[in-house]
Amino acid sequence: ENTFDLTAHPHTRLNILTGEWVLVSPHRSKRPWQGKVESPALVQRPSYVEDCYLCPGNTRADGTKNPAYTGPIAFTNDFSALLADTPKGVVSEDDLLVARSQKGICRVICFSPRHDLTLPEMELPDIRKVVDLWHTELESLAAVPFIKYIQIFENKGEIMGCSNPHPHGQIWASEDVPMEIEKETRQQRNYYQQHGRSLLSAYLEKELKQEERIIAQNEHFVALVPFWAVWPYEAMIISRRHVQHLLQFTPAERDGLAAILKELTTKYDNLFETSFPYSAGMHQMPFNDGESHPEWHWHMHFYPPLLRSATVKKFMVGYEMLAHPQRDITPEYAAGRLRELPVVHYKKAGV
Amino acid sequence: ENTFDLTAHPHTRLNILTGEWVLVSPHRSKRPWQGKVESPALVQRPSYVEDCYLCPGNTRADGTKNPAYTGPIAFTNDFSALLADTPKGVVSEDDLLVARSQKGICRVICFSPRHDLTLPEMELPDIRKVVDLWHTELESLAAVPFIKYIQIFENKGEIMGCSNPHPHGQIWASEDVPMEIEKETRQQRNYYQQHGRSLLSAYLEKELKQEERIIAQNEHFVALVPFWAVWPYEAMIISRRHVQHLLQFTPAERDGLAAILKELTTKYDNLFETSFPYSAGMHQMPFNDGESHPEWHWHMHFYPPLLRSATVKKFMVGYEMLAHPQRDITPEYAAGRLRELPVVHYKKAGV
Ligand SMILES: O=P(O)(O)O[C@H]1O[C@H](CO)[C@@H](O)[C@H](O)[C@H]1O
Ligand SMILES: O=P(O)(O)O[C@H]1O[C@H](CO)[C@@H](O)[C@H](O)[C@H]1O
Repeated sequence: ENTFDLTAHPHTRLNILTGEWVLVSPHRSKRPWQGKVESPALVQRPSYVEDCYLCPGNTRADGTKNPAYTGPIAFTNDFSALLADTPKGVVSEDDLLVARSQKGICRVICFSPRHDLTLPEMELPDIRKVVDLWHTELESLAAVPFIKYIQIFENKGEIMGCSNPHPHGQIWASEDVPMEIEKETRQQRNYYQQHGRSLLSAYLEKELKQEERIIAQNEHFVALVPFWAVWPYEAMIISRRHVQHLLQFTPAERDGLAAILKELTTKYDNLFETSFPYSAGMHQMPFNDGESHPEWHWHMHFYPPLLRSATVKKFMVGYEMLAHPQRDITPEYAAGRLRELPVVHYKKAGV
Repeated sequence: ENTFDLTAHPHTRLNILTGEWVLVSPHRSKRPWQGKVESPALVQRPSYVEDCYLCPGNTRADGTKNPAYTGPIAFTNDFSALLADTPKGVVSEDDLLVARSQKGICRVICFSPRHDLTLPEMELPDIRKVVDLWHTELESLAAVPFIKYIQIFENKGEIMGCSNPHPHGQIWASEDVPMEIEKETRQQRNYYQQHGRSLLSAYLEKELKQEERIIAQNEHFVALVPFWAVWPYEAMIISRRHVQHLLQFTPAERDGLAAILKELTTKYDNLFETSFPYSAGMHQMPFNDGESHPEWHWHMHFYPPLLRSATVKKFMVGYEMLAHPQRDITPEYAAGRLRELPVVHYKKAGV
């Protein structure tokens, strides 16, 4: 008899964090591809590049000379999308043309002086230094009274729009709370008010019981493919402890975060034996809005585009832009593939 | 004195159709680019290709032989993301894992037998035939009782995930109303209930008065860059008459639609003298949901990714995925560029 089966039949799944839906078409992974083939990431980059404006000692676009830095560094983006001195203003013509000024601060974080080392290829203590720098940056941005939200993120790989290959992340801090955060606040608050615990604590408990979407875990963090994943190998890192933001992590938890970051990104690189592109970033509570946000549970999203190989990605285009996101392989299949991969980086395996 | 200026200062704008916001950074278009450079579209494709599974007389993936067709044709997608015979089912575990089965029908529309002719390069009467085929398809899909929404769209160009270069569009018809349509229904309904006219009639009136975001117009349709455009050269075609769906257009309006399609897509190709990639699709009212949807106003969206040239596109990545869409050039600048371009296709100019 033909009964509904999540692994075989088209269906939609609910993203409990945003309240949005994704269309899953498990049967569709075999369609032929005469479309775009990406060039794979360069196998080996030099450790220093003369005309890279992020390498130590080089001159940036605005004329600043980078210090001869040895660990991660942060500085204000020379081409910030948001500026701290934007004058206040509001436009509203009959509720048809509506706009408001937006102040903010944009920062760049070079993960290390090395032009050739992405997160999975860095040593654990060096990744821990990146976690510490995120902490310092978050602390000082949260101290700026007009800043309501601080988005820490990384675009990795040129197919994710990274405008300079030197491994780096960014922070965009803004006067208003961005839409994605508004959605996650609403959903988490509803759950917290009804159940008295965080939505992600309950969700994590269920995932740890079922196991099939778990990728990796340590004492403090779990990496999994969420039930509602949109991107083929999308993942989330969730802290086991319900904390609202990064500043609440203990030193042991910061070590744990560095470790799970290394493990997840190494598995990513090993999947297609390429420097795996993604956009990733953490979500945490808004600051300076007069609320304590007990509902918020810190987590990190990874949105990687590759689908079939190092050169064929998933496109979020026509139907996805006009109607509804859509995916082919199931989240359970993706998690299984990632789970079974080694935790040693393929470039170092057999050395 | 420093007063807020939409053309100079970072700000957010409201999309009145969805209720969502976009971050505009007008000052940011001069940042250096050491990122991805796309390969430009092939200048000239052959008119027939032996291993193209969409060319006349060729064999498709499922073994079907295409007829020796001479005008546009439609057939069911061999790799449909949605299927008509999906068994009904619902999953809900403590409101944490939530899914529902989804029935639907996916169709492919080849615009013409010619492998080398995209919409702007087709003759007006041939584009009119595509409009007529959309009409026929819409009519027959709307007659299927379980179909609630019919999404007609096109992914043009390999950087928009088009999996076969033979010019074609698609239709995905589904059992549930997709999220983007839910949002537009809600916004249009609120406006209609408050003002007794369609949101887009009021909006169009304002844009026609201001002129600065208008690209092109004829007796029946207007093409403009919406005030809240996310993609650099995003556009909308809006019908002057408030109709709910395509089937209501008169023969003269169908001619008008063909004409504005040719004009807008020709200007797009002329902008960077390349076959301009985009995802485009029409939005109209849901069917078979027991409502008459007086609030709905037919329109078509164009989401093109190119930003600076035929080879440098805008990436909707990190910040955009995690927080909020962002754009650099202003909608007014984009509209001005498109408005001043010739209506003769660059390949035919000076011939
Ligand atoms: O249907 P196609 O052309 O094979 O596929 C293309 O359009 C679909 C609908 O927008 C997308 O889901 C795919 O990612 C894209 O590659
Ligand atoms: O800031 P970058 O690296 O120059 O630019 C990149 O990240 C930004 C933030 O996600 C995006 O707006 C840009 O489209 C992308 O190219």
